[in-house]
Amino acid sequence: MENILIILTYVAVGASAISGALEARKHEMDIVGATTIAFVTAFGGGTIRDLLLGRTPVFWVIDPWLTVVTFFVGAIAFYRLDRISNRLLIIADAIGLGLFSILGAIYTLQLELSPIVAVLMGVVTGMFGGVLRDLLCNRIPNVFRQSTELYATCSFVGTSVFILLRSFTIESFPAAVIGAAIIFSMRLAAVRFKMTLPAP
Amino acid sequence: MENILIILTYVAVGASAISGALEARKHEMDIVGATTIAFVTAFGGGTIRDLLLGRTPVFWVIDPWLTVVTFFVGAIAFYRLDRISNRLLIIADAIGLGLFSILGAIYTLQLELSPIVAVLMGVVTGMFGGVLRDLLCNRIPNVFRQSTELYATCSFVGTSVFILLRSFTIESFPAAVIGAAIIFSMRLAAVRFKMTLPAP
Amino acid sequence: MENILIILTYVAVGASAISGALEARKHEMDIVGATTIAFVTAFGGGTIRDLLLGRTPVFWVIDPWLTVVTFFVGAIAFYRLDRISNRLLIIADAIGLGLFSILGAIYTLQLELSPIVAVLMGVVTGMFGGVLRDLLCNRIPNVFRQSTELYATCSFVGTSVFILLRSFTIESFPAAVIGAAIIFSMRLAAVRFKMTLPAP
Repeated sequence: MENILIILTYVAVGASAISGALEARKHEMDIVGATTIAFVTAFGGGTIRDLLLGRTPVFWVIDPWLTVVTFFVGAIAFYRLDRISNRLLIIADAIGLGLFSILGAIYTLQLELSPIVAVLMGVVTGMFGGVLRDLLCNRIPNVFRQSTELYATCSFVGTSVFILLRSFTIESFPAAVIGAAIIFSMRLAAVRFKMTLPAP
Repeated sequence: MENILIILTYVAVGASAISGALEARKHEMDIVGATTIAFVTAFGGGTIRDLLLGRTPVFWVIDPWLTVVTFFVGAIAFYRLDRISNRLLIIADAIGLGLFSILGAIYTLQLELSPIVAVLMGVVTGMFGGVLRDLLCNRIPNVFRQSTELYATCSFVGTSVFILLRSFTIESFPAAVIGAAIIFSMRLAAVRFKMTLPAP
Repeated sequence: MENILIILTYVAVGASAISGALEARKHEMDIVGATTIAFVTAFGGGTIRDLLLGRTPVFWVIDPWLTVVTFFVGAIAFYRLDRISNRLLIIADAIGLGLFSILGAIYTLQLELSPIVAVLMGVVTGMFGGVLRDLLCNRIPNVFRQSTELYATCSFVGTSVFILLRSFTIESFPAAVIGAAIIFSMRLAAVRFKMTLPAP
C-alpha cells in the first residue's frame, strides 16, 4: 500500500512538473524559469498548507529526493518534450488533486484543528500549486476563471465526504480512498462534460 | 467592550470580503475565484503578519467561524449584490484598516519585538490584504499607485502614534483607541479630499 | 572580518533597495509602492528562505535597523536619484547575490538539512527578491526570461562549489569566500559577455 502511495505521488508530481515546464516554454522562459515553475506547480499547494499550519521546515525540505526528480522532469520536459497527450496530463493531474487534497486534510486533522479547516486545507493543497504557477506566469489563475471546468469544487466535495465519513466512525483509510476517488472521477467527469460553475 | 471589538471585526472582514468578491466579478471569475479573493482580501494581511512573526497556525485556522462567514459573504456578494454604496464600503474598510493595523502592532509587541517592527507589522496587516487581492487579479497593487488616496500612510501614522503614546506610559487601551481613530478618520479625510502622496 | 561582512551586506541591500525603488518609479507608483518594492527586493529572498525553513520571526524582524536603512535608501532613490551608473548597480547586486546565496546555504546546513536543500535555499535566497519585485510590478520575473544573463545559475554553481569544498573537510570560512567569489565573478562575466541559457 505504502508503495502505491509513493508511486501515485511521483506520478502526480511528475504531471505537475511537466505542465509547469510546458507553461514556462509558452512564456519564453529559460530553464531557470521552467524548473522553478515546475517546482512551484508541484509543491506550491503543500508548501502554503505547511506554512499556514506551521509545519516547518516544509515537507519537501525534509525529503529532498522528490525535489531532485521534479527538477529533472521539469528540465527534460522543457528541452525535449515535443508533444504529450493532453488527456494523460489531465488524468495524472486528477490523481494528484485527489491524493494531495485528502493528504492536506489528514495533516490538518493530525494537528487537532477543526474539520472546517481540514476541508479548507485540502482545497488549498489541491489548487494553490496551479494558482502560484499562473501568478509567476503573470496571468489570472486559471482555476478562478468562469470557463474552467470544476477543479477546486471537486477537491471541496471529496474532502468534505472524507471528513463526514470519518466522523461516522468509518476508519480513516477507506474514507480516504473514497474521498480521493470522488475527487479523481468528479474532475475527469467535469473535463469530459465541460462542467463549469454558474456565472453570477 | 469585547463585543464591540467582535462586531467591528465582522464589519471590517465583511467589507473586505464584499470588495474582494466584486473585484473577482469584474475579472470574470467564477465563485471559486470570488470566495478565494474575498478570503485573501479579508485575511491576507493578518496571514502575512503571522507568517513573518512565526505565529502559526495562523489566526484564522484557529478560529474557523470567521472563515465560514467570509466565504458566505463573498459568495452572496458575488451572486446577488447588484449595487452597493461605495461610500459604505469605504467606511467599513477604514474601520478594518484602523482595527487591524493596531492589532498587528499589539501582536508584535506581545512578542517583545522592537517598536519599529510593530509599526511595520501594523502597516503590513492593514495593507497586504489588498495587495494580495490585486496580485491574484493580475494588476499592480492599487495601494502602490500615485493616484490612490493615502492608505498605508494612515496606518503608518496611527500605528506610530499608538506606539509613541504607549511609550509615554499611557495605558494600552486608550492608546489603541486613539491610534485606530486617527487611522480611520485620516483615511476618510484622504478619500474625501483626494489626498495623495507627492510623485517624484 | 565581521565588519567587512556588515559593510558588504549594507552595500548589497542598498543596491537592491535602489533597483526596487527605480523599478517602482517606472510603474508610476508612489512612495508606498517604492519603499515596499525596495524592501521586497532587498529582503524577499531571505524572507522566503526563513519561512520555508521555519526560522521565524524572520531575520529582518529581529534586527530592524537594516529595515530602516532600506526604507530611507528606497525613499531617497525614489525622489532624488536622477541617474545612477547601471554598472555600479550590477556590481553591487552581484555582491549581494554571492553573499546571500552562501549565507542561505550556511543557515540551511545549521539546521542539519541535506546539502541538496542547502544549494536550493542558496539559490532561493539569491533570486527570490527579484522574483517578488517583478510579481508586484505585474510582469514575468526577469530572472526567468531567455534573454536574461545567467543569474540563478551563478548562485547554483557557486553554492554547489561551497557545499562540495566543505564536504572535503575544507573549513567553512575559506569555502564560503571561494563560493561567493565564484558567484560574483560569474555573474559579472555573464553580464559582460551576454551569456544566457540555451532556449529549448
